[in-house]
Amino acid sequence: MKLTILGCHSATPRTNTKPTSQVLEIKNHMFLIDCGEGSQVELRRNKIKFSRIKHIFISHLHGDHYFGLVGLISTFHLLRRETELHIYAPKGLKEVITLQLKLSNSWTNYPLVFHELSSDESELIFEDDSVKVYTIPLKHRIYTNGFLFKEKENERKLNINAVLDANINVAYFRKLKQGADVINEDGILIKNELVTQDPVPPKSYAFCSDTLYNEAIVPIIKNATVLYHESTFLEKNESLCVPTKHSTAKQAALIAKKAEVHTLILGHFSTRYMGYEGFKKEAETVFHHVLLAEEGKTFEF
Amino acid sequence: MKLTILGCHSATPRTNTKPTSQVLEIKNHMFLIDCGEGSQVELRRNKIKFSRIKHIFISHLHGDHYFGLVGLISTFHLLRRETELHIYAPKGLKEVITLQLKLSNSWTNYPLVFHELSSDESELIFEDDSVKVYTIPLKHRIYTNGFLFKEKENERKLNINAVLDANINVAYFRKLKQGADVINEDGILIKNELVTQDPVPPKSYAFCSDTLYNEAIVPIIKNATVLYHESTFLEKNESLCVPTKHSTAKQAALIAKKAEVHTLILGHFSTRYMGYEGFKKEAETVFHHVLLAEEGKTFEF
Repeated sequence: MKLTILGCHSATPRTNTKPTSQVLEIKNHMFLIDCGEGSQVELRRNKIKFSRIKHIFISHLHGDHYFGLVGLISTFHLLRRETELHIYAPKGLKEVITLQLKLSNSWTNYPLVFHELSSDESELIFEDDSVKVYTIPLKHRIYTNGFLFKEKENERKLNINAVLDANINVAYFRKLKQGADVINEDGILIKNELVTQDPVPPKSYAFCSDTLYNEAIVPIIKNATVLYHESTFLEKNESLCVPTKHSTAKQAALIAKKAEVHTLILGHFSTRYMGYEGFKKEAETVFHHVLLAEEGKTFEF
Repeated sequence: MKLTILGCHSATPRTNTKPTSQVLEIKNHMFLIDCGEGSQVELRRNKIKFSRIKHIFISHLHGDHYFGLVGLISTFHLLRRETELHIYAPKGLKEVITLQLKLSNSWTNYPLVFHELSSDESELIFEDDSVKVYTIPLKHRIYTNGFLFKEKENERKLNINAVLDANINVAYFRKLKQGADVINEDGILIKNELVTQDPVPPKSYAFCSDTLYNEAIVPIIKNATVLYHESTFLEKNESLCVPTKHSTAKQAALIAKKAEVHTLILGHFSTRYMGYEGFKKEAETVFHHVLLAEEGKTFEF
């Protein structure tokens, strides 16, 4: 599982700070999460192949999370993309994008599929053989979702020497990987655990931005491998959290602790601060494993 | 008159090329012309004060000419702008912007005034004491205007020694600047030309992008001080001009020559080319005074 941060600052793009956008590589997918203005240039800068992006998840319709999307969609069109593009976003986005494509008299030459979200409950919005994606309802000034990306249970690993010794026909290997006991060539029942090993535990990534401190998300993100939680402010500016519906670094850490996640990544920093070590220090008073998002940085888990 | 190029490339923004946007400083105005994705960052990079921009002119609704506008409008809001902002753009833009502001639940706290354009004739769209702005109807794939920015006739300059020698009361200075003859303190008629000098000739700037080669614009831009004309392609790719409705460098130069402008600036280069000296050379086979647009470059006239 690999996470590349394209932008991790709040509000307005500047020469040295970029609005929210990130790419999650999980199993064979490259999921783009949020797409602030300029994200397509950051994708290029980080050498992420446009053609590998097939699913884009938009948390909410504040500009710093989606103003770069229409440009990316247009660029895909100019580059003669043919592959389907799926967009998961709050209701309203489809209208914005289609209006702009209509005005420019250039509908995409590839299928553009909108999955508009409006539920206040966590829901499964994507599933294939290897990954499931759920929404995480957040509390912000407008309708907002985080997203939980979960690998499915991996298959058991064959202990190939034990399998050969047990004289099992290759036709049963698939069943073994799925955990079943099988009959060998001599008609004897072979217990699965004798010839396989436990699978690699599935990983999960929870993206939570933007949101007020909200314990209701804890059961949804419980035990996630990685939690990216917004920390727009430091505790000294906590009074700004309620009116703007954002969180402090400490609040992000409290959520990480309650949810017993493995790693917390802080991001969505207000540009009022110079340097972000203070965010890490503040969060570490509550939670032990804190990382700072940074534009152009890739994390591997 | 000062022109700063924020972006001068066609189609998609890249790490080292920016879509169309430029700032024209003329008299006391800072006019923003087009606003491709990322323009607000380029304004910052070029240290152009946001508060000085009060009028934005959008040529057409292809993304590389306006996808940065909604972000700029939002940033002005976040920075607590109070001054009116006027936007001159093809019909449709108001709907796009208002829809996006509605979805983000954040109308601007400053007055946002749209002047929607739909005429196929050149029309006066802005006028104050010092400047007039006219549309220049262009031929592109969708409804498109260039813009002609014209200084008004400047006032005559007082020859202050002659004025004092002629014993003229200060109350008449304004009339002298306007070209009138006046009566001096001794009751004698003083001919204007004896005590004033010709004014600085008014300057004008014609912005023409995007467009097919179109001689119909020649009378409108006749004798302009500076013509910025798109030159998406070189002559060797001229066959692309008709389907895409763009021009070559040579065609831009032909327009400059026919319109007898003083200076031609080429821009809106396709990113298919490496280096742009070829554009200058090609245009110089037709027209004598050719400059190349370049991101971050400021021209003074």
